Amino acid sequence: MKWARGKTADGTELTGVIADDMLHPRAALGSDQAAGEAVPLADVSLLAPVVPGKFIGLWNNFKAAAEKGGMEHPAHPLYFFKADTSLTGPDGTVVLPTSAGRVLFEGELGIVIGKTCKDVSIADAEDAILGYTCINDFTSLDILNADPSFPQWTRAKSFDGFGVVGPVIETDIDWRDLTIKVLVDGRERQSYPAADMILPPAQIVSALSQDMTLNPGDVIACGTSIGARPVKPGMVVEVVIEGIGTVGVTTSAPAD
Amino acid sequence: MKWARGKTADGTELTGVIADDMLHPRAALGSDQAAGEAVPLADVSLLAPVVPGKFIGLWNNFKAAAEKGGMEHPAHPLYFFKADTSLTGPDGTVVLPTSAGRVLFEGELGIVIGKTCKDVSIADAEDAILGYTCINDFTSLDILNADPSFPQWTRAKSFDGFGVVGPVIETDIDWRDLTIKVLVDGRERQSYPAADMILPPAQIVSALSQDMTLNPGDVIACGTSIGARPVKPGMVVEVVIEGIGTVGVTTSAPAD
Repeated sequence: MKWARGKTADGTELTGVIADDMLHPRAALGSDQAAGEAVPLADVSLLAPVVPGKFIGLWNNFKAAAEKGGMEHPAHPLYFFKADTSLTGPDGTVVLPTSAGRVLFEGELGIVIGKTCKDVSIADAEDAILGYTCINDFTSLDILNADPSFPQWTRAKSFDGFGVVGPVIETDIDWRDLTIKVLVDGRERQSYPAADMILPPAQIVSALSQDMTLNPGDVIACGTSIGARPVKPGMVVEVVIEGIGTVGVTTSAPAD
Repeated sequence: MKWARGKTADGTELTGVIADDMLHPRAALGSDQAAGEAVPLADVSLLAPVVPGKFIGLWNNFKAAAEKGGMEHPAHPLYFFKADTSLTGPDGTVVLPTSAGRVLFEGELGIVIGKTCKDVSIADAEDAILGYTCINDFTSLDILNADPSFPQWTRAKSFDGFGVVGPVIETDIDWRDLTIKVLVDGRERQSYPAADMILPPAQIVSALSQDMTLNPGDVIACGTSIGARPVKPGMVVEVVIEGIGTVGVTTSAPAD
């Protein structure tokens, strides 16, 4: 099942399930309850499929990247939060602020939480996952390392538009089968298997739930692997995960 | 003017203004529009006065602490986000998880945003500040420094209950006049002048707005100064700022 959120021509925002090229509105993300007439997908502009309460991103969660960087495998997720205002949906424009310096794309698999959970086992964590989405976790490399006394993970990841999520949340999928790809202006620039993850999704959710309550709609970006690169204004940057879909944005210079 | 949020005996949540020992409900935080009958404060349990979209915390923003730690004064705020689920209000209980190890109180002045702002000048930032509140930014010292490759600011600050805010948001106050105090079981353990800040409130808001859009209700904890100490279960920890009020919580061991 594919969950999506979209806006109709009159500005109404709908959350629902996609079937037969229609968006079937539901009362809330994950709900069985219908909420109005189905709308043809052609009449809907897709938004990020969820507005997360917490937008969590992992660092150092792929074996290939850890090996390349000479980093040990963490036993507990190493994470930061991205700002609510960093959220962007399909076909958005991502402004690259002058102050951000070099900005990298980072294609990632995203976990979307479906049930409130705290201190849950790995089995219960599996059950708390609603589905998976595509994420581009844009990161300012220059901000991250600008101050030797304080790595600025939060700031580097939180510029408006730096959290691209979409196009849908797929519930019927085995994450082990997925490949995360990034295309820049149509050329493949990143491609790695989700199965190379150090901490797999249910273990991430279980471990995070030891730290804090997770709520429906919370999003966890699973971290990226090798191949992230800087972008320049005017590029089309797409994250493609077969079985979920493609979420693309266009980068832009700041307005004068 | 003092803004507060509270819950009545029947579970209704109200946001409004305190006058004559009554809570006068308003349509939203900062709104002039009345929204129902005033309720005696005695019949209301105060909650954190705002549910922030972004709950931002600053590091290294007091001259005395910077001098003690041998740290340079930052030119731009150094910050992290606390989880939405870390929010606690007056008279809450803060569980100290076993996994958190040593947990410090950190008494802080909190800025509450009243207007959406992006890329604003210091003058406009001043105008975007609704008011000030008291914050206890509980921090797990052991988690913060557990992994030498990645300082865990987000995790250390985001356990459920670690973000104490309240009791009210005071709009008619000059931050330069304030002293931030922490009492533990009634004994003064921290006391420092807000005027010792490195980056003052309007400059913080202006600088953060260069990074991201700030929205009404966003909260910025201005950082702490010297005197933060570890807590143990069963302590009453109060942050006191004369002119705003006192927000106290009780620490607790985890349930068996």
